[in-house]
Parts: sequence; structure tokens; C-alpha cells
Amino acid sequence: MADLKITGVVPPVVVPDTPDHQLDVPSFERLINRMIDAGVDGLFFLGSSGEVVFSTDERRRQIISEAIRIVDHRVPVLVGIIDTETERVLEHGKVAQELGADALVATAPFYALGGMTEVEEHFRILHEELDLPIFAYDIPVCVHTKLPWPLLVKLGKEGVLAGVKDSSGDDISFRYLCQENEKAGHPLSLLTGHEIVVDGAYLSGADGSVPGLANVEPAGYVRMWKAAQAGDWATVKAEQDRLNEISHIFDVTSGVQGYAGGVGAFKTALWLLGVFDSNIMPRPVKALEGDNVEAIKKVLVDNGLL
Amino acid sequence: MADLKITGVVPPVVVPDTPDHQLDVPSFERLINRMIDAGVDGLFFLGSSGEVVFSTDERRRQIISEAIRIVDHRVPVLVGIIDTETERVLEHGKVAQELGADALVATAPFYALGGMTEVEEHFRILHEELDLPIFAYDIPVCVHTKLPWPLLVKLGKEGVLAGVKDSSGDDISFRYLCQENEKAGHPLSLLTGHEIVVDGAYLSGADGSVPGLANVEPAGYVRMWKAAQAGDWATVKAEQDRLNEISHIFDVTSGVQGYAGGVGAFKTALWLLGVFDSNIMPRPVKALEGDNVEAIKKVLVDNGLL
Amino acid sequence: MADLKITGVVPPVVVPDTPDHQLDVPSFERLINRMIDAGVDGLFFLGSSGEVVFSTDERRRQIISEAIRIVDHRVPVLVGIIDTETERVLEHGKVAQELGADALVATAPFYALGGMTEVEEHFRILHEELDLPIFAYDIPVCVHTKLPWPLLVKLGKEGVLAGVKDSSGDDISFRYLCQENEKAGHPLSLLTGHEIVVDGAYLSGADGSVPGLANVEPAGYVRMWKAAQAGDWATVKAEQDRLNEISHIFDVTSGVQGYAGGVGAFKTALWLLGVFDSNIMPRPVKALEGDNVEAIKKVLVDNGLL
Amino acid sequence: MADLKITGVVPPVVVPDTPDHQLDVPSFERLINRMIDAGVDGLFFLGSSGEVVFSTDERRRQIISEAIRIVDHRVPVLVGIIDTETERVLEHGKVAQELGADALVATAPFYALGGMTEVEEHFRILHEELDLPIFAYDIPVCVHTKLPWPLLVKLGKEGVLAGVKDSSGDDISFRYLCQENEKAGHPLSLLTGHEIVVDGAYLSGADGSVPGLANVEPAGYVRMWKAAQAGDWATVKAEQDRLNEISHIFDVTSGVQGYAGGVGAFKTALWLLGVFDSNIMPRPVKALEGDNVEAIKKVLVDNGLL
Repeated sequence: MADLKITGVVPPVVVPDTPDHQLDVPSFERLINRMIDAGVDGLFFLGSSGEVVFSTDERRRQIISEAIRIVDHRVPVLVGIIDTETERVLEHGKVAQELGADALVATAPFYALGGMTEVEEHFRILHEELDLPIFAYDIPVCVHTKLPWPLLVKLGKEGVLAGVKDSSGDDISFRYLCQENEKAGHPLSLLTGHEIVVDGAYLSGADGSVPGLANVEPAGYVRMWKAAQAGDWATVKAEQDRLNEISHIFDVTSGVQGYAGGVGAFKTALWLLGVFDSNIMPRPVKALEGDNVEAIKKVLVDNGLL
Repeated sequence: MADLKITGVVPPVVVPDTPDHQLDVPSFERLINRMIDAGVDGLFFLGSSGEVVFSTDERRRQIISEAIRIVDHRVPVLVGIIDTETERVLEHGKVAQELGADALVATAPFYALGGMTEVEEHFRILHEELDLPIFAYDIPVCVHTKLPWPLLVKLGKEGVLAGVKDSSGDDISFRYLCQENEKAGHPLSLLTGHEIVVDGAYLSGADGSVPGLANVEPAGYVRMWKAAQAGDWATVKAEQDRLNEISHIFDVTSGVQGYAGGVGAFKTALWLLGVFDSNIMPRPVKALEGDNVEAIKKVLVDNGLL
Repeated sequence: MADLKITGVVPPVVVPDTPDHQLDVPSFERLINRMIDAGVDGLFFLGSSGEVVFSTDERRRQIISEAIRIVDHRVPVLVGIIDTETERVLEHGKVAQELGADALVATAPFYALGGMTEVEEHFRILHEELDLPIFAYDIPVCVHTKLPWPLLVKLGKEGVLAGVKDSSGDDISFRYLCQENEKAGHPLSLLTGHEIVVDGAYLSGADGSVPGLANVEPAGYVRMWKAAQAGDWATVKAEQDRLNEISHIFDVTSGVQGYAGGVGAFKTALWLLGVFDSNIMPRPVKALEGDNVEAIKKVLVDNGLL
Repeated sequence: MADLKITGVVPPVVVPDTPDHQLDVPSFERLINRMIDAGVDGLFFLGSSGEVVFSTDERRRQIISEAIRIVDHRVPVLVGIIDTETERVLEHGKVAQELGADALVATAPFYALGGMTEVEEHFRILHEELDLPIFAYDIPVCVHTKLPWPLLVKLGKEGVLAGVKDSSGDDISFRYLCQENEKAGHPLSLLTGHEIVVDGAYLSGADGSVPGLANVEPAGYVRMWKAAQAGDWATVKAEQDRLNEISHIFDVTSGVQGYAGGVGAFKTALWLLGVFDSNIMPRPVKALEGDNVEAIKKVLVDNGLL
């Protein structure tokens, strides 16, 4: 377990739904195979864009099982065990490790108000009572707590955390995290979740990325990672520029916000690309339709994806 | 179901834990009986201070079962069905109604980002698929969405919502909500969750209150409600003044924040009063100890409770 | 100076502009006289709704001079000395006291980030270097600092502050402030700035109010204060209910936000009522027009003001 | 005016104070000359760290005059004209252009609440009524408005804005801004204000930086800019790594926050380096002392600056 080193491109896998809100297994299989064929280095299931908080426990179990069956050891499988507080997160962690996950990803506790004492204790308990590497998922926009880099480095040094998935939007904090992690002997795998600025994160010293947009265009992120490994920063930037043009699927829609516009854009693009059979969203979110679908189609056409 | 009218004092019940983090049933029984004996008009289980987000599904089920057994129809039982998104909330709702709850309390969806479209759809689905009155729990400090009064009144008029538990800290919005609810024929039971300003909420036209501090001192809240019913506002204010002195159990501690200091103070006071056998907190929160316990004790002594 | 006790209704005076953005003195005179005639207990110039931050130093000086000339000692004159940091606030304070103000109103420092050390030092310097009573203006929505009640009570006891104008939207903090001020011998005059919930603030023990809506309907606020003084809470609530219906001038407009919709609604109502010659706003804010003016007119008609 | 292109390293100049809170001209002169000698490409006076909001109008005038005298056309002089709303900002702009500034830097309006309509109108008025290039200063942590990249690009294309100083902490938005500005023909000079992640901003396509830390260590930032120009990203990163070690002067102090710890650390370092005669801060902020000074000294020693 201590030997698992997650690096490179690890997309957070989007989940396809059938019209009656069941997991659409054939679409899921197409999506996963398409990303592995494109050369991704791992897959992260049940992340924020992977419908984790929309899924019942039974559905979470089904997503993990199908994911592990489909991936079939071709790449490491990371599983999000996201829930409000420690005991609930532990339950998800036990299920995921029983089903065969390679690593677990947990946020700070949320809903109840607390401080860093509780955050630290939370990760320590997860480490003690679970048998897989734990990644801290730093996503203040959802959990309303920012994980401070000194705490992350400390927990990395002590072996409590194996890595960090950074979706904090705080590039200064991430820069310090990379630098201090390096000085500490690099105990943590540091992955950025910000698909638009992966280039800057790689220059900062990130070990990899978790780009949602790689569901739509995995090859570009794979090329960018290889260029970064080779120190070819002009190519890194050029790939990022190109991917960012595709990322405008996020902002060409109107009348929608948050998950409906973000993950909704991914699902709509995957549907238009023939990977998904529909763009159905989990309740209470509505699928994009009409002009919003056309606007996304235009972005894909303009960028040569369609 | 449409006939249920919740009014008066409905404390959100704090949950006692054993040293191995199990439900301490004897302490729970003493707490519930003490509040019913003091004359409360209902009890709200699995609210924010009732450890809802700390409790696994099995533990939630146990709390509801024991609560319903102990209350034994002496007062209505409201149950919190708090979780991130619709499908998960529905599951909790089905369990609660199967176990015999009288009404359900649900927040806006949280964790995933969204807007009012999703919030409205969420409450509509809960109403359609559950068979009990639904109270909207407006608690932006935890879910980071404020429920606007126009939406609440609209959902009240249409029979989607039976009431609102307001913990928004927004007395202006609550004032409008009371006034517009009245103009609409009073479809909603409006309960304030702010124990420190129940007097102002009653003057605004609230139908009742959900004061956490009533776990510690139920009799004062019962007297305040009776005085408000009688239009005796001088007594309402005097009772609130007295209760607020006791409420300093929240701010005499140091080095703790959020749940640890708030619910931690309730549990410590109940332990000192002999109602609870300990002040143990759910993981990852630590129980108050040492000087913090002494400081709370002093408040209880100074106010004649001990 | 120590003897000044501000109580009752002290409206924050809205400022009329001419088409070329000069002070419209005749309209200003009509507005002030109308409020004094209605029985208000004081007037607050250069508050947030009094265009303080939109006005150059020269314009501020003109507003104070005209205000003092027009009021002519009929009621106390409070003047806002609002600016970013201490030295700038001091300059405004010196001008206001030279021109004849009765009391000064200052916020916490803003723009630069700081903490309570700086806030406390700021008020202490103002007290030491100015010769008029200082009111702390608690308006976190504008300055992004909440003034804690323990600090306010402490500064009141020491004679640093003469009072507080509370626009914090935090009725719990205000309730504690009233109660602790009382226990300390009532050193502070406590005025609520929330026109919609003045009834609750009076029940809490407020010494008065600073309601922007009193620019439009001063008589209602005067009656409410008298009823509160007499302990007639049913009338207090009824007056507040009626005023709140008028307050919908804030929310019947569309496409505008913040100052444009708030102070814009006051100016438009005063224009429709014949008190102001126009509803012109300070740059860069645009005046309400078209359907928004009609919507406000309808509220005034529906409530018998027009 | 349209020809001014600001690129490279443009430090926001920190201001030294005498014990009686006057401008310490000899220290100011040493600081400016030291940075110009190190090769900076411009200087920005009266920015957030240049005490703009702490300075009276007279003091602002003095800082500008002395700055222009000392710089003596060796590099372009940018001047912050930061104040709450349009008319006040215009006044500062007229003074700065009369005194000989090369460009002006203005934030979105602050204190009064508003929306993008007001922000856009604000910059349009500044452009129409002032005769120097206007840089938009995007600093939501101080003004609580984020300037959206589509608005900035639009105002750049129309010639309203000459550039942007980005202190938004939003690297995603800055990445889009760089990319869209490029597609629009590069009308805007884009400068990052985040001294810790200048490397990533340069890779994004920034035209330069405004690093506060360059007051302490200008040579490193100059070398980093030259390496970026040469496409030598390994050196860019290495220089950033080294500068970030020095930047720990921000976090080795305790008991201080915001301006006191940030600009306080700059002043203390400059005092220890012999550039400033003291580390006195503007009221109401206190200078760092005792252990905090020692902690900063240790960082300077450890990094070979002392």
C-alpha cells in the first residue's frame, strides 16, 4: 500500500444514466475504455463530478463494482468515499476496499461546523481504520473548508495521507504544497483537479491531474502530461490552450448553473460524441436541452471533435 | 396529514453517547421525558444538533426507533432526513415514515453546486414520493443555500411544504415570510431555530420555536411560548433575557469552535445536570474537558440551575 | 458631549441630485422638513444610503453644511465619517465637527485586511482625536468586518463609543449587545438600521432606529416608536406590518441590484411623492426607469401613499 | 498614450514612515533606487501595499510627487487611484496625471453594493474623463467584486482599459483572460499580482508581474522574467522556488493578520536589510516587534539575504 504512487492523468469519471435513472452500463463501459485507450494513468470514480453525493449507497456500490470489472486492473482505481462525517465516510471506505479499490479519496468533514482539530482527527481515523492509501480531496467550494498545506505535509510525512487531489482553486497554496512536499522527501502524490490550469500546476511540480474535461478529450491531457515529463513547456502550454477552447462547453450555455452546467456539459458532449446514449442528469438536476445542446455542439464542431 | 399543525416549543433533541460511541438509551430517555414533562409541544430528532450528519444509517434508524418508543405519542415527532441530494434524502424519508414519524424535515440539497431550480425540484420530489408533511429546514450556515421566502410561500400554498424550520439567521427574511404566509392563509407552520431571539420571532408571528437550549432549560421556553400566546410581551422578553444568560455556556469555553463548542456545551450541561451520563461527542469531535467544563458549570450555578 | 443620548427614530437621510449631479438643495430641504414635521428624533447624514462613499470631500462638506442650516437645531444631527482607514476618517471627523455636527458615525476600517486589534485601535484613535460622541456603524455587508458585541460593550464602558448603529443583520448579536449594555449601566445608545424588523429590535431593548424607509414614510416609524415606549406591542407589530408592505418598493423592480435597487427605490418613491424633483443617482449608478418606476408607483398606490 | 505597453517586473512600492507617521523620504529613495538598479521594468505606487487607503489626499499627493522626482523617467510610473466610487476616483486620477504619472490603476467600486452594470460604467467614465491609460485592478479580497474576464477583454478591445493587474487569486480566470486577450490581438497588458506563482502566470501568457516581494528581493524577479522571455522554464521555476522560500516572512509571525503581517513583513525585512530606517506602520496598524522581528530575520539569514 505504501508503494502505490499515483501520477499522470487520472480523470474523474462521469456517470451515464438511463431514462429511469439507473446506471447505463454500456455507456459507462464505452467511456472507461475510451479513456484507457487514450492512455490515462488512472481513473477516479465517485468524485464530485462522478455523482457521488447524488448516489444512494446501493448505487455507489454498483458504480464501484462495474468500474472495477470494466477497468480490470489496466490502471489504478481511485474511489471517492465522500460523506458528511467520519463514521459515514468509514462505511463507504470499507465497502470500496472490499470491492477492490486501489486508493480512497476523502474530503474534510462537512455540514457540521468545525475546525482544523476535527479535520486532522478525521483523516487520522480514516487512516487507522481503513487499509488503503487515503487521498485528501481539497474542495472548499463544496465542503467550505480549505485544507492548509502545512497540515497536508505533516499528514503526508506521518504516512496518514498518500496524496492530495487539489480542487481548491488556490494556486498559491498548491505551489507551497508542492515545494514543501518536495523538501519533505515527496511523501504525497499531488494531483490538480483544475483542468484549465494543469500547465501551471505541472510547472509547480504536480505529480498529475484529475481533469474532468478528460472525459471528453483524454488524448490532449495525455499528450500534455508526456510533454511536461519531457520538460517541453511550449507543448504543455499549447495543449492547454487547445483544451481550454474545448472547455468553453462550460460557458456557452445559459439559464443553468453549477452541476447542471458543468457536469451537464460533459454529459451532453459525451452524448453528442456517441459515447453516452443520453445526457440525463441525476435528480433534482435537469438535463441540458434545446439551444444549450446546440451551443455545446458548436464548440465541439469548432474544435474538430465532431 | 394536511391537518398536522406544529406549533409551540419543539426542541431539537441532543443525542447522548456511550464511551464506545453507541446511543446511550437511558440518558436519551431521561432527556426526552424531562422535556415532555416540562410541557414542550413536540420533539425534533436528527436535526443538526441531533447528530444527524454524524450518524450512519443504522444509527439513524436506532435513534428514530428509540425516540418513537420513548415519546409514545405524547407529542408529535419530527425527524430530520438530512443528506446531500434527493435520492439519498428520499431513502431517509422512507425509513422515518416506516418507523412512525409524524413529520419530516429536509434541507436544500448540498455539496453539489446548484440554484433555485434544483432546490424547488428537490422539495417537489420529496413531497410527491413521501407520505408525511415536509418541513423545509433553512440552514445556510450548513448547506450554503438560503431558501428565499417567495419560494417557501409558493410551496406552502401548493401544499408541497407544511412548514419551515428557520435557522437562517436572517430575521428580515423571516419577517417577510411570516407576513406573506399570513396573507396566503397561513399554509405554513413557521418555527424559528434561533434560541436567543425567539421573542422577536414570536412578535414577527412565528408559530413556534426549535430552541437547542431547551434541552437544558425547557421550562423557560414553555413559559415564553405561553406568554406570547397571551400577548404578554414583557414576560416574553424577561424569559428570553433569562434564557440568554444561560446561553453563555456557548461562549465561556476556549479553544473549541463550531459543533464542539455548541452541542458540546449542551452535552456538558446535561451531564452536569445529571441528565446525561457523559458529554461524549461523535467522532471526529472531542468532548469538552477541564477548564471548559468548569466554565459551563459556573454558568449553570450562577443561573440557579445547579 | 457625554450627555448626548440619541433615542427614537433617526432616519438616514437620502440625498437628491440635480441632472448635472449637484446637490438639489430645494428637494433636500423638503425631505428634511417633512421628516422633522413627522416627528423624527434625529437625522443621520452621510450614511450608506446618504451617498457618503459617492461624494467627494467638497460634496460631503456641502451636504453637512446644508443639513445643519436646514435642520437648525430642531433635532440632533449625526454625520457619517466613512472612509477606508483611520487618518482619512479623522479628516472627515474634523470637518464635521467644525461644521457643527452633534455626533459622528464611523465604520470599522475597510479595504485593507486586518483584525480586531486594528478595529479597536481605530475607534480609540477616533475618540482621542475628535471631540464629538462616536457611534460605531456595524455594517459587515459593506466593510466585511462584524463588530463583536463584547468589544462594543467594552468600548462603551470606557467611554470610547457613545453608541452603535447596527446594520449587521445579526439579530442574535444585537440581542446580546442590548442585554450586556443594560447590565453595564447602559453606556451605549443602540440603534437598529434594519427597517423591516424594528419591532423585534425594540423588544430586544433598542434605544431607537435608523430606518431608511422613514425617508418615504416617517410617520409610521414615529408611531411605532411611541407605541414601543408605551409597551403597546400589538401596535408596534401592526405598524411594522404596514411599513413592510411599503418596503416592497425594494423587490418589485427587476434587472437592478444593490444600491441601484435600494436607494434607487427610495429616490424614485420620493420623486413620485413630489418630495424630490427627480430620482437621479450618483455615478456610476443609473436611475430607475420605465417599468421599474411603474412598479414602485403601484406599491405606493396600493398602500395609500399616492 | 495608446502606445504605452507595460511589461516585465513592476513592483508595488512599499512606503516607509517616520516615527511621527510622515513619509520617510530618504528610505523611500533608497528603496526605489535599489529596485531600479536591480533592473525592474516599472514601479507601481499607491497600490494596496503602498498604503493607498491609509493615506490622506495630501499624503497621496506627496507620495506621487516624490516618486516621480526620484524615478526621474528611468522606468514608467503607475499610480493607484483607489477609492470607493467614481467621483472620488476621478479626483485622484486628475491629481496623478497632473503630477506626471504614466498610467493609472483603479479597482472596481467598493463599499456600496452593485453589479457589473456599475463596474462597467465606472471604468468607462474613468476612461472618458482621464487622459492616461487605465489599468483595472482585480482584487476581490479587498473590494469584494471579481472582474470577469469577458468584461475585461471587451473593455480592452474598445480601448477603455490598457491592462489588468490581477490580484484575484483566480488562476483559471486569469488563464482565460490571457488566452482571450491573445485572440483579440493582445490589447491588454496583463500583470499578475501573485508573487508566489508568477511562474505559472508567465506560462499562461502574462505580460509581467507586480510582486510585492520584489521590494525585498528585486533581482530574483528580474532574473525570472528574463528566463521566461527566453523560454527557459526550468530557470523560471527555480527562481520562483527560491523566492518562495524568502516569502515565508509572511507566515513565520504569530498574533498578527492581514496588512500587519503582510506589508508588516516587507517593512520589517527592508528595515533589517538597512533599506528602511524603521518598520513603522500606518495607523491603526501596529509594527511587528520582538519574536516576530526575529523570525523574519531568521528567514532572511537562512536565505542568504542577511
